[in-house]
Amino acid sequence: MKKMSLDELCINTIRMLAVDGVEKANSGHPGAPMGDAAMAYVLWTRHLRHNPRNPLWANRDRFVLSAGHASMLLYSLLHLTGYNLPMSELKNFRQWGSLTPGHPEREPHTGVETTTGPLGQGFATGVGMAMAQRYQAEYFNRRGFTLFDYRIYGILSDGDLMEGVASEAASMAGHLGLGQIIYLYSDNRITIDGPTDISFTENRGKRFEAYGWHVQHVDGLDIRGIDAAIQQAKKQTGKPSLIVARTHIGYGSPHKQDSPASHGSPLGKDEVRLVKQRFGWGKRSFHVPTSARQHFRKALTSGARLESRWNGMTRKYTGKYGKTGSVLADMLQGKLPAGWDSALPSFDPTAGKVATRSASGKVLNAIAPHLPILIGGSADLAASNNTDLKGAGEFGTDKAGRNIRFGVREHAMGAAMNGLALSGLIPYGGTFLIFSDYMRPAIRLAALMRQQAIYVFTHDSIGLGEDGPTHQPVEHLASLRAMPNLYVIRPADANEVVEAWKVALNRREGPTALVLTRQGLPTLDRRRYAGARGLSRGGYVLADPPKGARPRMILIATGSEVSIALEAYKALTAAGSKVRVVNMPCWELFEVQSRAYREKVLPPSVTCRLALEAGAPLGWERYVGDRGRVLGVSKFGASAPASILFEKYGFSVQNVVRQAEKLMG
Amino acid sequence: MKKMSLDELCINTIRMLAVDGVEKANSGHPGAPMGDAAMAYVLWTRHLRHNPRNPLWANRDRFVLSAGHASMLLYSLLHLTGYNLPMSELKNFRQWGSLTPGHPEREPHTGVETTTGPLGQGFATGVGMAMAQRYQAEYFNRRGFTLFDYRIYGILSDGDLMEGVASEAASMAGHLGLGQIIYLYSDNRITIDGPTDISFTENRGKRFEAYGWHVQHVDGLDIRGIDAAIQQAKKQTGKPSLIVARTHIGYGSPHKQDSPASHGSPLGKDEVRLVKQRFGWGKRSFHVPTSARQHFRKALTSGARLESRWNGMTRKYTGKYGKTGSVLADMLQGKLPAGWDSALPSFDPTAGKVATRSASGKVLNAIAPHLPILIGGSADLAASNNTDLKGAGEFGTDKAGRNIRFGVREHAMGAAMNGLALSGLIPYGGTFLIFSDYMRPAIRLAALMRQQAIYVFTHDSIGLGEDGPTHQPVEHLASLRAMPNLYVIRPADANEVVEAWKVALNRREGPTALVLTRQGLPTLDRRRYAGARGLSRGGYVLADPPKGARPRMILIATGSEVSIALEAYKALTAAGSKVRVVNMPCWELFEVQSRAYREKVLPPSVTCRLALEAGAPLGWERYVGDRGRVLGVSKFGASAPASILFEKYGFSVQNVVRQAEKLMG
Repeated sequence: MKKMSLDELCINTIRMLAVDGVEKANSGHPGAPMGDAAMAYVLWTRHLRHNPRNPLWANRDRFVLSAGHASMLLYSLLHLTGYNLPMSELKNFRQWGSLTPGHPEREPHTGVETTTGPLGQGFATGVGMAMAQRYQAEYFNRRGFTLFDYRIYGILSDGDLMEGVASEAASMAGHLGLGQIIYLYSDNRITIDGPTDISFTENRGKRFEAYGWHVQHVDGLDIRGIDAAIQQAKKQTGKPSLIVARTHIGYGSPHKQDSPASHGSPLGKDEVRLVKQRFGWGKRSFHVPTSARQHFRKALTSGARLESRWNGMTRKYTGKYGKTGSVLADMLQGKLPAGWDSALPSFDPTAGKVATRSASGKVLNAIAPHLPILIGGSADLAASNNTDLKGAGEFGTDKAGRNIRFGVREHAMGAAMNGLALSGLIPYGGTFLIFSDYMRPAIRLAALMRQQAIYVFTHDSIGLGEDGPTHQPVEHLASLRAMPNLYVIRPADANEVVEAWKVALNRREGPTALVLTRQGLPTLDRRRYAGARGLSRGGYVLADPPKGARPRMILIATGSEVSIALEAYKALTAAGSKVRVVNMPCWELFEVQSRAYREKVLPPSVTCRLALEAGAPLGWERYVGDRGRVLGVSKFGASAPASILFEKYGFSVQNVVRQAEKLMG
Repeated sequence: MKKMSLDELCINTIRMLAVDGVEKANSGHPGAPMGDAAMAYVLWTRHLRHNPRNPLWANRDRFVLSAGHASMLLYSLLHLTGYNLPMSELKNFRQWGSLTPGHPEREPHTGVETTTGPLGQGFATGVGMAMAQRYQAEYFNRRGFTLFDYRIYGILSDGDLMEGVASEAASMAGHLGLGQIIYLYSDNRITIDGPTDISFTENRGKRFEAYGWHVQHVDGLDIRGIDAAIQQAKKQTGKPSLIVARTHIGYGSPHKQDSPASHGSPLGKDEVRLVKQRFGWGKRSFHVPTSARQHFRKALTSGARLESRWNGMTRKYTGKYGKTGSVLADMLQGKLPAGWDSALPSFDPTAGKVATRSASGKVLNAIAPHLPILIGGSADLAASNNTDLKGAGEFGTDKAGRNIRFGVREHAMGAAMNGLALSGLIPYGGTFLIFSDYMRPAIRLAALMRQQAIYVFTHDSIGLGEDGPTHQPVEHLASLRAMPNLYVIRPADANEVVEAWKVALNRREGPTALVLTRQGLPTLDRRRYAGARGLSRGGYVLADPPKGARPRMILIATGSEVSIALEAYKALTAAGSKVRVVNMPCWELFEVQSRAYREKVLPPSVTCRLALEAGAPLGWERYVGDRGRVLGVSKFGASAPASILFEKYGFSVQNVVRQAEKLMG
């Protein structure tokens, strides 16, 4: 091997591991790790405060590889600095069951902070992490007890900067002045389709200045320059920092440097040989020179020292500040504090109609004082989504304020929620159900990462009325139900909203979408019908034929259609039909019940079934079966008052009775 | 009524119509029309080249109300300038069956160019319109025959500028130097949640300069200033223009001006009275002073003259340039040219495996030379999506180049495709199926507007392999099928790709998603199995038991799972089972077939059915019925080679045979 400085040796170690990992997998992205190794090295060895032995240390700096395709860069750094990611995993890159998937997937035990790959998501998730840091600092820190002062570092690619979600998040971060963010933008001037000249010629630095960011330009190979830029960025406590680093994709590859050819494919055996020659690396694969390893592993001692100091401080803190100390302990253990649900409201059926969005606002306000890690807001629809926490202050303005003003930025809201959840908080975010489409990629990542994000999706059907089809969700319930690991809950009345929030808050391992009405709904009389607790089983029998008679047919409904089903039930029962009403607010919860329970609710012998839901019928066949029928919405909505739309689309008691009678023959 | 200048009178007429419309509907957004009336007036009476008598005149300037909630502004202008939108429709605002829905919905006969309301969409759709203008100009215009020089004007709100889709589109427009765009940004400093100070403090003008836009600042009440700014913007032929106009939401309302209170609710009877007092308007509702009407209606004469001159030029042009003249005639009539499908390839089953994405690239390249209105590209995945048109030039660089480099901007791509389609072109756009989530709001608008956009969604399942779950679609087929009016086609082999493109191109009234594999698939031997033409019916019988025997079970599959089903069929048949294989590439097409046909394909008496699809099982119960089973993907994918994933997720011939035998008992 060629003589080289320790810095060079370490940087080339990263490069060669990435090259070897991709080559062995015969799949992956070698170019970005080769180009970004120098700046990543400077960041990880001179700035990042972390403890490889405990990737969950609460005050660690976060590293977000927004350019997730450069995954081998991250895996190499984790391995080299001493995380629980052995060389065997690097050799097993992109293979079944490995800890080194093609794109980084959140894995707390190996130090992968967040799942990235879909471009822009890491950028915006990091903004959420910085929001979490600010809240934690404002809520927990006391004079002499700086518990939370971690920074969020990231590496970005051109693609990250082109995606709208990153633009939204950048604007939000600039507005909030999130100075803990330091992002290194790998300006390699190459995208998959060719040089950035063909599609991306804006002045990126100037754009970020316009957002209120601190912007610097450096040479991505200049170790000192990068170091100085990060130093400088750290001083910007009131502004997020973007360091535009001129890098070279596939750096060191004689035939593929600065070419898309090094982006998404292995370099190939011959080129790998030439690259190793170029770096004086010899022929060995997955080689880590001892001095490089020793240098990287210094992170172990410094990390242990950092954490131990922090633990000491935290112990003293807990002794001195009992109340916030106990909030801290719960947060660190991922526990909800005792009594968080002590003040939940209940709603009186005689008190008139209540929109489920309005009930949700009341529930949220009842819970919030007992659950300081609950934080959220709306994408500029706070009054409509009923997401405001009264008296809880404005995030970013008031100290430890909890009302986040996301602006008209649903996608950034979704991604920021992921960052908040990854940091130990419980985020909620509101918008109209229709605009869940704007944030789907972020919802998907919450589901994939098993993060507790709570979506407050109001105005859930044609029932929103006059705003028309652009604002009326039709396909959204079905499309959200299709997503693995997402709970979709559509409560039927105010008391079910209470239960829905309980489910959402107790579910620490995944996201929940609360689907709520704009319009008022009757509060069901639970002395007459089954209790709202049934929601926790996903589906339950709400009403049955009198005198324990066996039902001849089943009406199944969710949300605003449940009270229509009950009215139809009354009319049919009065006419002598034997009808059961099943409320099915959450399919996902129903599906995990025992078969016995499910068949008790929907007995296979009762094949005469009618499902009512003001949304796409897709999927309802599962519950109505071959002989059943679905009364859904198979076309777009229309602009008119809600009551007229319900009538026109068939959601009237009269029509339900007619359809039910037809089905019963 | 108070004495006022003609300009004032006209502007106030717009304001009062908007106020009255919202008040009568008891629903809507009065604030924006009141604030934006002055600049809209200047634009519509001094700059917009249009012919109210023919809203489809091909060289009309386009007006995009990106701030769709200000719909009464648009309806007032359309009514006043003489479009086919009588006063009765203004009085019927937001009512069932009216032509004046809550947000503007594309309606060619009344002059509503595009559906807006979901923020950012209008902005980005307008960018697509400007791309169409450039292509049409470059393709059709000749010396002395400037057939296409229309401009795209728009009115934007704060929300439009906050949405990521607009950021993506702005970057694209700046890169392409789309000088025909002139957008007026209504900088009213108010969003629903309060002053923009609480969430949106970036320097918008500077941001747009960074994108390469020409930016001006004016007072939104200053008629001369607005006029001069638009004049100036017109001179910027190489740069899109943003005119930042300081406006006042609810202008003229004593208690609600500059307040969110005037945004989304009627002003209320008392406030309306005060506003009318303030403007010296008297008490009449829906009042249009004669002189104002006369002034606005000048658009009729000038429009007729403009169009007649254009028609004359076009006639001469057609005489002189036969070939492009005939392309023009077809485009204007919405017809596909004769022989567009003359060069479609066919694929030989003995020639080895072909990925359906690769077949798609061949089909596209075969069609393109015969269909000059076909234009498109990819969101930075051209080589992966196989969307490049060889030799057709680069859009924006080569004259009439047709390969659009959208960059990593799926959402802007989707919205721009809507703009292209609305302008008479047939756009296609490629990305990975997983990233359809990034562009869903735009897909939905294509479906709602019945526009012919063709999505080339490749890498359609866990079959993409090593890139892992962040890149493997699972729920996307189901979530796209849930959307009304979208065709989702997943062809089983190369020859079905030909048929799929035929369906997509013949479908002038709605969008189609082509869902294609990364991996190679066998080309089915159509002498042995039914012809690929069956695709046009959505589902068809591919194989049946030998000797006309009645099937005992049905295997139903789509895309890459069809050849697995056929292998299983062979094994089962060899073992003596009587099995039918149904290929179901497009549910939407199958659903519109006659009941007789559907029951021929899926006879109700054959209840033993197994569906195979490497995606969420949601909805498949419709076809497999109560006794059937779905072999789908109910969790997220994983990072590993595709063949291993197919095995692990149960998509092996062996497992299908086992499941089928189990079902048959």
